This record gives sequence, structure tokens and C-alpha cells, in this order.
Amino acid sequence: MEILGGPLFSVAGAGESHGPGVTTIVYGCPAGLQVERAQVQRYLDRRRPGGNKLGTPRREDDQVAFLSGLYSQDHDALLAGPEVALGDGVQTPSYECGTTTGEPIAALVLSAAKRSSDYRQFAGPEGEVRPGHTDLVKHHKSQGFVDPRGGGRSSYRSTVSDVIGGSIARLFLQQCFGMRLFSSIDQVGPLKARRRLSDHIDELVRQGDGKLLAPEQADQLDIELESGPLHALDADFAQEAGELIQATRKQGDSLGSAIEVVATGVPALVGEPLYHSLKLKLMGILGGLHAVQSCEIGSGLEVVDRTGSQNNDPIRQTGYQTNHQGGLIGGISTGMPLVLRLGFKPTSTIALSQQSVRKNLSEIDYQLKKGRHDPCLGVRAGVTVESRVAIEVLNAVLAHQARRIDPGQFELF
Amino acid sequence: MEILGGPLFSVAGAGESHGPGVTTIVYGCPAGLQVERAQVQRYLDRRRPGGNKLGTPRREDDQVAFLSGLYSQDHDALLAGPEVALGDGVQTPSYECGTTTGEPIAALVLSAAKRSSDYRQFAGPEGEVRPGHTDLVKHHKSQGFVDPRGGGRSSYRSTVSDVIGGSIARLFLQQCFGMRLFSSIDQVGPLKARRRLSDHIDELVRQGDGKLLAPEQADQLDIELESGPLHALDADFAQEAGELIQATRKQGDSLGSAIEVVATGVPALVGEPLYHSLKLKLMGILGGLHAVQSCEIGSGLEVVDRTGSQNNDPIRQTGYQTNHQGGLIGGISTGMPLVLRLGFKPTSTIALSQQSVRKNLSEIDYQLKKGRHDPCLGVRAGVTVESRVAIEVLNAVLAHQARRIDPGQFELF
Amino acid sequence: MEILGGPLFSVAGAGESHGPGVTTIVYGCPAGLQVERAQVQRYLDRRRPGGNKLGTPRREDDQVAFLSGLYSQDHDALLAGPEVALGDGVQTPSYECGTTTGEPIAALVLSAAKRSSDYRQFAGPEGEVRPGHTDLVKHHKSQGFVDPRGGGRSSYRSTVSDVIGGSIARLFLQQCFGMRLFSSIDQVGPLKARRRLSDHIDELVRQGDGKLLAPEQADQLDIELESGPLHALDADFAQEAGELIQATRKQGDSLGSAIEVVATGVPALVGEPLYHSLKLKLMGILGGLHAVQSCEIGSGLEVVDRTGSQNNDPIRQTGYQTNHQGGLIGGISTGMPLVLRLGFKPTSTIALSQQSVRKNLSEIDYQLKKGRHDPCLGVRAGVTVESRVAIEVLNAVLAHQARRIDPGQFELF
Amino acid sequence: MEILGGPLFSVAGAGESHGPGVTTIVYGCPAGLQVERAQVQRYLDRRRPGGNKLGTPRREDDQVAFLSGLYSQDHDALLAGPEVALGDGVQTPSYECGTTTGEPIAALVLSAAKRSSDYRQFAGPEGEVRPGHTDLVKHHKSQGFVDPRGGGRSSYRSTVSDVIGGSIARLFLQQCFGMRLFSSIDQVGPLKARRRLSDHIDELVRQGDGKLLAPEQADQLDIELESGPLHALDADFAQEAGELIQATRKQGDSLGSAIEVVATGVPALVGEPLYHSLKLKLMGILGGLHAVQSCEIGSGLEVVDRTGSQNNDPIRQTGYQTNHQGGLIGGISTGMPLVLRLGFKPTSTIALSQQSVRKNLSEIDYQLKKGRHDPCLGVRAGVTVESRVAIEVLNAVLAHQARRIDPGQFELF
Repeated sequence: MEILGGPLFSVAGAGESHGPGVTTIVYGCPAGLQVERAQVQRYLDRRRPGGNKLGTPRREDDQVAFLSGLYSQDHDALLAGPEVALGDGVQTPSYECGTTTGEPIAALVLSAAKRSSDYRQFAGPEGEVRPGHTDLVKHHKSQGFVDPRGGGRSSYRSTVSDVIGGSIARLFLQQCFGMRLFSSIDQVGPLKARRRLSDHIDELVRQGDGKLLAPEQADQLDIELESGPLHALDADFAQEAGELIQATRKQGDSLGSAIEVVATGVPALVGEPLYHSLKLKLMGILGGLHAVQSCEIGSGLEVVDRTGSQNNDPIRQTGYQTNHQGGLIGGISTGMPLVLRLGFKPTSTIALSQQSVRKNLSEIDYQLKKGRHDPCLGVRAGVTVESRVAIEVLNAVLAHQARRIDPGQFELF
Repeated sequence: MEILGGPLFSVAGAGESHGPGVTTIVYGCPAGLQVERAQVQRYLDRRRPGGNKLGTPRREDDQVAFLSGLYSQDHDALLAGPEVALGDGVQTPSYECGTTTGEPIAALVLSAAKRSSDYRQFAGPEGEVRPGHTDLVKHHKSQGFVDPRGGGRSSYRSTVSDVIGGSIARLFLQQCFGMRLFSSIDQVGPLKARRRLSDHIDELVRQGDGKLLAPEQADQLDIELESGPLHALDADFAQEAGELIQATRKQGDSLGSAIEVVATGVPALVGEPLYHSLKLKLMGILGGLHAVQSCEIGSGLEVVDRTGSQNNDPIRQTGYQTNHQGGLIGGISTGMPLVLRLGFKPTSTIALSQQSVRKNLSEIDYQLKKGRHDPCLGVRAGVTVESRVAIEVLNAVLAHQARRIDPGQFELF
Repeated sequence: MEILGGPLFSVAGAGESHGPGVTTIVYGCPAGLQVERAQVQRYLDRRRPGGNKLGTPRREDDQVAFLSGLYSQDHDALLAGPEVALGDGVQTPSYECGTTTGEPIAALVLSAAKRSSDYRQFAGPEGEVRPGHTDLVKHHKSQGFVDPRGGGRSSYRSTVSDVIGGSIARLFLQQCFGMRLFSSIDQVGPLKARRRLSDHIDELVRQGDGKLLAPEQADQLDIELESGPLHALDADFAQEAGELIQATRKQGDSLGSAIEVVATGVPALVGEPLYHSLKLKLMGILGGLHAVQSCEIGSGLEVVDRTGSQNNDPIRQTGYQTNHQGGLIGGISTGMPLVLRLGFKPTSTIALSQQSVRKNLSEIDYQLKKGRHDPCLGVRAGVTVESRVAIEVLNAVLAHQARRIDPGQFELF
Repeated sequence: MEILGGPLFSVAGAGESHGPGVTTIVYGCPAGLQVERAQVQRYLDRRRPGGNKLGTPRREDDQVAFLSGLYSQDHDALLAGPEVALGDGVQTPSYECGTTTGEPIAALVLSAAKRSSDYRQFAGPEGEVRPGHTDLVKHHKSQGFVDPRGGGRSSYRSTVSDVIGGSIARLFLQQCFGMRLFSSIDQVGPLKARRRLSDHIDELVRQGDGKLLAPEQADQLDIELESGPLHALDADFAQEAGELIQATRKQGDSLGSAIEVVATGVPALVGEPLYHSLKLKLMGILGGLHAVQSCEIGSGLEVVDRTGSQNNDPIRQTGYQTNHQGGLIGGISTGMPLVLRLGFKPTSTIALSQQSVRKNLSEIDYQLKKGRHDPCLGVRAGVTVESRVAIEVLNAVLAHQARRIDPGQFELF
């Protein structure tokens, strides 16, 4: 069952790269959350192809329309969303601004920039296989009944659903706990950022109450991160990395990258202890993202060559004094910032010639004919990563609350 | 997580009675099934309000558009579905005819016939409570953040998703196993049909190979069932029941009803044995349907006053000689027809005055002001019931196949 | 995945009729519930074969040992349970009395009364098939790798796990909400009880606060129900039914039966609205029980020939004035008593000769050689039915609480 | 719901570090797999504390007893397992050797080496908190109702269930596909192995058919890996690392470590494409393991500073020419070896003094009083890691087969 997150908060998605659109249903958001379409649209815009000159030249407006799960007694405000029309007859406004009812929230994003001619190189049993892509395995897994246009369902376009679901989750977490999510690209190919987002946030937080960022600080950090050519804290690095990406694209090649994601104001005590721990969920949902080949939490790989006396976080009355564990102990949140880091492989689609096969396994020298692609996946991935973290944190919040029964919540007459 | 069926084949739904539309995502259909939009539309038309003069006067076209999960190399045929448009900009054809890819199938049905003024009687904390409806519990469960228009998500309109998902399932089961599904109303208020569908099918099947109906027989039975004023095998009963429904509607009252559902050509050996048995799944998915207050399998309640020697189905080389168990033994399918029967309460919405309260629990004499309703729920329910059976049977089929490993299915090079 | 209930509270079970024992793991009970082994043992004793002269002559002590999930600083009290020993070496006390920790609770019940010689008639591909039993389908489903002794896993013995899990759930629900569960046999073959449990409880409840039974009243009702030869409210009926069962057993035949189950003090507002509604869950978990062929809620089948004006429950400030809906509206609890009724088929195993086949489908006149069986399944089923209701109600309670977030529950430092 | 793996093959576990024992139920193994207790015991012995002088001095026999889910017509062979006894009365042999029936397989491992006095330092609201451990979060999460002895359920002892479930899975995968699993410690603190297991296996495989190891080769590699003081391919490294571990233990400190796990003969085409991809599942189940802070697949973190032309694996008719992706593309298996690498933090329990708090948050200088611990978690972790991989691969295998319907598997008469 293709559901992201769950069992209490989950996101169902559907839609192929070059199909009519991406459909999303968000389950389990508690009733009473105020949602404005513009808030979700802002996150989608960060994900949108064509929004960044370092990304794919494919352009999508990716306008979202909400079709259920919201309500407001002010029907004018509620029904001010974009019109949806089907066939000759029916036309209806969608939702612009309302409060969650606890019912499933459906959202529709249509696809505009389809160039179906691009896919012919890859169609059918004689179709060519792009190295590093799912073409070959999906063709045989589906016994040939695959949609080969633009990678079909396995396209990065599917993350529209992640971002919509994650936006609902982060609105809830922000409103309820003051939780905020940030990400920063900290490596592009061989270039490494000199400032780590987690260190920066650690400083900011320690200047405050030790856990939360003040809302102004958080807004300021958001602006800072969005201001450069890359979503990165280190402006000099962003500059250099941007140039490297452009140069690499010109050479017909692509680059790997790494992203750090940090959450502040994380509700403490959430996460089941073992098999469904928040650590397991986060490592899975992030490590399972397209093109991710490494996932680290807290100090990550560095802990391997530490001793216990170096790595254990000392504890004082005010909290943990360091955060090598990255905000989780035994898979349960401590209230310290959540810190995770992802390594993305270089984009598989490149313009250089490569050894490959047709789907029938006859060998070819493969040469890409057409297509528009991101030369470095990290450039647009940050908001997806943040979204996936939010989805699992909200799940863990709901699961924790489930076991703290307040009989006053179960009365009718 | 609001998912029908599962874990291998499941239907995710969203959408309120008077919202912009009903969104559906169908998961887990194996790749390679040929689907035409018209086939699914035909089942939706049976469910559609306004399609039967004994049903609600609300009219909906309920045109379905497919947005993902299908493909065909013949793009003209694939893309011949109704146009979907969003806002000012994007407009795209939807899918008309293609083959399943194994990816999630999204479907959109917009809602036309909304009369938002109808709901004012029920809005807000002073809103009136309709006896027999979810108004009161949903208001308090959601802490007031409910969509009160037309019952919101708890409307029978939600079963659009059941029918779409069930249509995909029954197409698969028919194509793969020759399985067919039928239902017949056999009681309306005090009036009982003289012919039971299960008996009729039993006769037909025993004239043939003992399990399957020949395709022509099945098509013929479909035509017979759809020909009268009610979806019922017994034409005389249908006539009388139709008149009773009309008369009762005029009195401002409503009627209970019962439906029998029968599947032929059921694949044998499917269903897990105990906690997730096919019997458990079917009794749940049918007994959980709106307004259902009884669910029986095989001979149902009648078995209580039988002895074992009367009730055990004798077995011969060709199969079971009777079908008191209704096609399942120990929760596992025998290949005999599946037989279930549901009792529906009379529609809660009536025009007569009743004792009730406002949502704040102050007492009122409740009198419905406006609204369009089915006077007898059984009239439109059959296709939903058939659909839900198909969903669980397909789940059980996939689960059974999962444990019959054929290593030849796991080869690439 | 063979899990009863879920996703928040669930029971995992394992163990065949004539295997070494039944293993149970109970997941999701909130921390802080006081559990004494004797409380659970008392429910198991109601289920135990050999405990009732109208049941099977097979005798089992069915002593339960708890192996995890409880704790007490008073180690002497905690560790006063029966010793468990494995092989030559390890021996350890099990838990007698402790508080739940929120971790999974494992329980072991060993099987004593195995007569393996009894099964020979049914073993292997030449084995005989008992009409009405799973022998044939399970043999072919498992491709012959089935444990044929005493019905293997499909034996009623598997409900040991239901009762253990249900006992934990009902202890929680009683402690937290004052909820109580009762059941009464109300039909055996053609004999019907003159007093319905739901009517009796309705009266008692209306004399009190309208929802809850006072603890003494509930204890008194428990005693009344357990006092006769059958677990039935109507003593005269119990007497007659007991005699009929004895007589039928002597004739080598068996009888059908019906049980009504009622819960009082049910927490209001629990249950998801549609696809995972409490009604769906209850109809599934009860309708899916071995040998059940009908499941009704509230007024059940009777509602079919009512009108809406007869069936709608009038509402006053103090609650619903009747309970035709059986405690749920739209699948959500109203706080009124939950009322369900199950019809059980007559026991399949009878001593009379019947037409049957061998597993290879060659025809035989089947005659049972040995074996000890219940002549009427209702006799021992009540506690299992109550247990299954408790499991789903606790699930619904946890799911409801999950969405009522109290930020104070998420603080550490 | 504390279930490892799922939905088709899953492992339910229960049991605390110092409780009576660890209970395991394995769900979903297809019928027909031959299982000998000794095969599972061999894997448990690799996990067993006390089995390696570089591990904890705690000694456990960890003898496993099977209580359900197996069968054999040869009852003497079936029932030759260790005796299980409960209380005064019941005593029964457990299963030694049988064939899976498709029913849940329950297994019991009792705990011998409990020193309950060890835990007093940590008990109650004044109890001390061990830095790096779950003591604090679990105390507050459970509102004080936690079992503090030896880390309770959060102990590494819980992985007994992982190994039992994983053993069943790997037996199935080996028997059906020739799949084999290996792991090697390749870093201990600052010491790195000079030979990587994945490179070594790559060479062996390329000498053969490109995918599978010959059974003798695999057995030989098993022997090689088990021969040294550490489960590591590189004998010199193992020697040095062993000495470093001993020296560090004497200093009262601990060390981090890294393990590489490799599977050969992996069935191709398994894994769902997106949200439930095999990559997501593996990164989750491995990254979620106790003390793991990084999880890499294929070339892992190294891919970040590669270009696409360096990282894409060229494809020829015989398969992929390199394996930078680690055996999965788009989350689906290619048939190439699965390669993953885990970084473990140094054991949190050390003898050196540290800053900490009591559970009531008052500050202390924490000094461990008693307790027996592994100075380096990698030493015993390999078999757990292999087991978890097997569990998810088997899940993916079953899910893939589910969608390849063969109507011949659904016939009874």
C-alpha cells in the first residue's frame, strides 16, 4: 500500500511524471488546524521544477487545489480556491482557507509541461535503458506494462505529495509546539560548506531557552536560507557550488550532494521504543528517498571513531549539553533539535555516452536524446526532506498522545 | 488511516457530500489489466443519485476521470478521457482506456448538485441534530470543526470511492477467474421477495460446471436484475416494493430493506485462516457500511435453529452439495458461490417531527426543513455492496498468491 | 499478519490445538494499569474446556504465565507467578502481579490434554475430511503441509489469545471508564430465551445515571450470569436449553445458538467515521469468529421491517431515549450500551454418518472415530465474544485520544 | 504495534532484559519450509552474550524452543525439542524438526543470568540516569512505570526476536533462491579494515555466474568470517581491533564500530517502487537498530563527491558491471549483491565518571556501580543486521509474488 508515514498520520499519493496530475490524500490531521492554501503553495514552490536556475529547465506552476477535509462557516473565504472543471459540465471552486475537520484532505496538482515526444527512446521492449534509472527493473517487474514517459511514477515528481502532506504536518507541529524545520545543502560534489546548519542552530538555541527558536529567529533563518542561489547556510559555498553545478551541466555530467535537516522545538518523549521507533521511521523515510545513498543521525558516521566518553551527551537540569545523538535516544525524542544528514548520488541522467542495454538486454552505447533534468538533486530536495521529517514526527506525536488517556475527552451527554 | 480493504489491494477515499468532489486512489491492482473508463462509469451510474425514481431527487452526473495508473502506447486512446482544468492555466485530458501499470490509480468525481443553503438548520453549536444521524457525535468528536453540509464526509456520497475501487477489483477478478458479482433487494419494510438470488444462482450453477456461470448467463442475469424499478430478482416483489416506497415517501417516512449479494466463480483457497480471515474481512466491510445493522453469511441467522446434521454441507468429488456456509469454510473460500445478506435500517432522514436536541444539548422538536434523500437505502446500495465484496476478495487472492512462490518470477538477467 | 485488533492495541497469537501451547503477545496497553494474573485467569477459566458439563469433555487447566510487560518495585509480588522451565537448565518465575509498562505483554498457556492418536483418521493425502470443517481447504491451501491434529491452528483453542488480550483491554476500560462487558446465550436450537440481556441492562441503566452500571450492580449481574448451567440471564431457558444440549449430544448431533453481548459505561465519541469505523471493526471481529454466521448490532435484523419514525432513537438532554442503533451512530460510540448479537452454526463435528471425501477427493461415508467436542458452540463462546469487543473498543479509545493533543504531555526538561 | 517487518512476513517480539524470557512469533513464512531447531540455534549462538571474549561477560545459553507453526508426520522427530514446563503441572516437549505449515511460529528463549541487584542504582524517581541510554526518556514517557532492570525492553536482548525471525527468513531465501547473507566488521574506533567484504564477494561472484555464490564458496566464507576473534574478513584488522577493544575496556571506555552486510543470490525485481520501497524498508530497519547512527547503501557517502558518469553502473547483457547502487535501483532489487553499511556509536555504558541527572532532573556526577556490557557493539551485532535484512527481503519477495497471479493456484475441486 503506497502510503507515506502512518499509521496515524499518512499521505497517499498517485500520479506519474507525464500523466495528467498528482493526486494526494492526507489522513489523520487532527481537527481544528487553520490551513491556508498559500502556506502549502509556498512549500510546493520550493519544490517546483523551473523555480531555480540550477535545477531542471522543465517548468511547472504546480498550483495546488484542495478538494476536501477543510471547512469554514465563512463560505466565501473557504471557496476562494482555484476552479476545478471536469469535462463539459461540472465546474466547482476548490478550498482556499479553512480549518481541518479531521477528515481526509485531498489535493490536486495538474501537470502542464509534458513533452511526450521525449520518451520515445525508452518505450517498449526495444526501448533503451538509462543507466542509474529504474527503466530496466520497472519494465520487467511490471511485465512491460509500465508508463515509460519521464520515469513514470518513479519520477521525482511524485514528491509533490510528500510536500503537501508534510506541509499540513508542519503547520500542525508549528501551531501546537512551535516546532520549525530547516535544511541546508552542505556538500556538492567535492565542495563542502564551512558552516553546518546544526551547529548554527545549536548556537541560536543555546542563546535562547535551549530548545526552541523564537519565531522571529526562525523566520529570519528561513529568509537567510532562501536568499542564495542554493538553499544553503554558507553563502560562499553556495556561490562556488552554484558555479560548479553550471559547469558540470555544460559538460553533460552531474554531481552528488548532501543535505542536513534540522528541526527545533521538537515535542519530547515521542517515538515508540523499538521496532517502530522514530529513529527507524526517520532513517527509513529519508533513506528511502530517491537517490539517497546515506542517512546519518546526530554526529552520524563520525561516531564510529569516537569513544563512549567522547560521544555520550552530558546531562544537566536544563537538558543535554551536546547533541551527538541528534535529538533521539533509543528512538525517542529528547526535545533537543532533530539532526539528520542525507547523501544524494549524482543525477543518473547525464548527456555523456554510457554502456547500456535495451529492455530486451541487447547491448547498446547509450546516448540521451532529449529531456530536462536537475544536474544536482540536492538543489530541490530540501523541502521534500523537511516534509518527510514532519510527517513522521506528527505520527509519533499522535502515537504518544494515544497512550495518555484523559477520560474527560470521552464524554457526550 | 481511512483505507478500505488492504493491505495488498486498497482504496483511499476523500470528499464530503457538498464539497468540491470525491477523490479516490486505488492501490495494488496488478499490472496488465485492461481498463476502460466506461466500464467503471457503468458501475458508478448504478450508484448515482438521481438515477432511480425511487431514490433521492438529488441529481449527480458523477462522471469519473482517471488521472494515473493506466497506460497505453496508443496515446490517442489513452488520452481520450474528459478534460480536467485547474484555475486559469492548466488543462489536461484524463485517461479513457489503458492498461494498469501496477501504480496507484487516481480518480476524480466532481460534485455538481450542491445546495449549501440546505444545511443552515444544522450549522454551528446551535445547530439542530437529526435523529439517527451522525450530527451530534461528529460535532463533539471534532470539537465543532465539522463540515455540516449534507452530512459531510459521513454522507453516502463517500461510497463513490468504494464503487471505483470495487470496479477495478471486479474487472480483475472477472478477467482472471471469470468471477461475477450480483445483488438483489429481497426485503423492503415488511415485504419479502419470494425468490432468493442465491437459490436462483445455485440452480444456474448446478446446471453448469457447479461453480461458474457462463458469461452469457451472467450477462443475462445482470440485465434481468437491472430491468425493474428495483434491483431485484423477483419482479412482482419489485413492483409492490416500489409502490410501498413511493407511498411511504409521501407520508414523510422511510423504510428498512435487505440485500443479498452473491459472487460466482470465486477463486478457491483464498483467505487467511483466523484473525484476518476472508469471513472477518467481509463481515466487517459489509457490516460496517452506513446503516447496515445485520450481516449474514450463507444461511445466516437460520443456522441457529438447525442441528449439525442439517447444516453441514455434504461433500462429493465435484464439490459441496449444499452451500449453507456461503462459500467460506473457516474463513477460506471453497470455490462455491459467496453468499451474504445485509439488513439496512430505514433512512434516518424523515419529514415527520421528532424529539431531538441542538448540538449544545438543548431540547427541540425537530422538523426537517429542506433536503433530498433516499426513502429506502437499499435502492441504491447494491453496487456498493458488490464493490466492497470485490475489494476483499481481491485482497485475499493477492495474499494467497504471495505464499505460492515461483522462482521464475524473480529473474532479471 | 495474524493480529487481532490494531493498529494501536492488538493481540498476536500462535499455537495449534494439539501443539505444545498457545503463545500470546499483547501490544499497546498504556503504561500504569495494575494487572493481577488471577484476574486474567478468571476469564480464561470461563473459556476453558472441561469447565462446563455441557461443553467438550477435553480438560485443560489453561494456566497462564506472564513473561513480559509488567513491573513492580515489589519483586516478591511481581515474581510470584508459576515457574517456567526450558530443557535441563533454565528455570524462572513468571509474573504474578505488576503494573503495565507500555511494553508488549507476553503470555504462555501450555496444552496438556493432547491425544495425538485421535487425529490419524485425518492425516495425509488419504486423510478423511470432516464436513463443515477446514480440513479440506487447509490441506490444499497449505499444499499438504498442515497440522491435522484437532483442527490445528483453526481450532477454537486459538481463542486463548483473544481472551488474554481482551482481559487486559477490559481491565483498562473498567479502570479508566467503568466500562463493563456481559454476554448471555439467548437461543439454543429452536429454544429462545424470554428475557434479553440488553433489555435487562437497559432497565438497570435507566434506573441509574443512564449510562453506567454501579460496580455492585455489575458484579451482581456477573454472578447471576455465571450461576446457571449456561451463561444466560434467563434461568428457565438455561435449564431447558441445557437438557436439550445433553439430549442432542446423546443423539450424536449438535445445535446452533445465539449470544447477545452488551457493554455499559462505553466511552463516548470513539470510532473513526467510515472505513475504519468501530461498527466495521466490531462486525468484522465478531462476524469473523469461528462458526459465526450472523452478526447484528442494536435492533439488528428487526430494523428491516421498521419505518424511520419507528427506528430513530429520540434524543433528550440526558441522552438517547431508546437504543435501536446499539450504541453506535455512524460507527461512533454514543455512550449508550453497545449491543451486538451473534448467531453460531451448530458444531460441525457430529457422531452421525455423513457424505464426505478424502483429501484427494475420493468419496467416502464419513464416520467420526474419536474426539471430544462441544455439542453447542455458544456454551463457551461468551467470554471470547466479550474479549473481542473489548479489544476493538480499546483501539478506538486510543485512536480518539491520539487526536486530542495536550502539549503538556510532551515535555521532558 | 511492535512488529518487525511486515505486512506479509513479520516478527512480533516481547521481553525485557532481566524478565523471564523473550517471546517471539514469526508470521507469514510460506508452508513447506523444512526447519531444524539447530539451524536457528546456530544463528542465536552468534548473537548470544558470553559467546565472545570481546563481548559482555554476561552469559546466556539462549536455548530456543519452538511452540507452534511446524509439523511433521514423524512425531518423534517433531517432538524432540527441549521440554517446556509451567507451574507444577503441565510439561510438554517442544518442536525440534518439522516443516512450516504457514501458521505463526512461536519461539521461547528464557533468561538465566539476571542479577537484579545490579539495577538499584537506576530505580524509581530518584534513580540515576546513564548518559546515552534511554533511562530518562523512558521513565518520563511511561510516567514512571518502566522496568529499569538492565535497560528493560530497550536492551539489546530484544534482538533475540530479530535473529529468530531472520533465521526463518534466511532459511526460506536460501532454500528457494540460494540467497546467502554475510557481514563483516570493517571499522573499530579509528582502526579500519583493509579489505571490504563487498569487494571480496564481488570478486568471488564475478568468477562465477555473476550473481550467486556456489554453496561451497558461501560455506567457506562463513567459516572464514567466524574463525577470528572478531567477525571480520580482514584477519590482521581483527587482531588489532580485538586488542584495542580489550585495552579500551580496561580504561573503562568503549568504542564505535562499523559493519558491512552483503547478500548474494538476491531475487531480482522485488521491492515496491516508492513509499514502501525495499530501500526505504532496509534503511529503516537497519538505521533503526539500537546505537546505529549511519546507514549507507552501495557506495554510500562516497557517492556525494562523484559525478554521474563515475557513479552510474554500466549495464551489459550479463548484468550491471559495477554495483555502486548496492543491489537496488529505485528501491527494486537488481539481482546484484545487496550491500549496506552501518555505523554504531560507542557503547553508552562506560565505567568513567560523567555528568548526569537523576530521573527527577537533579544533577549528579554519575558513576556506574555494577553491570556487564559490551565495550564495542559491533562485536555481536552482525547476525542481527543480517537477520533484519533477511526479514525485509522476504517481505519484498512475497509482495512481488502477490501480483503475479497464476490461476492454477486457486483451484480446489
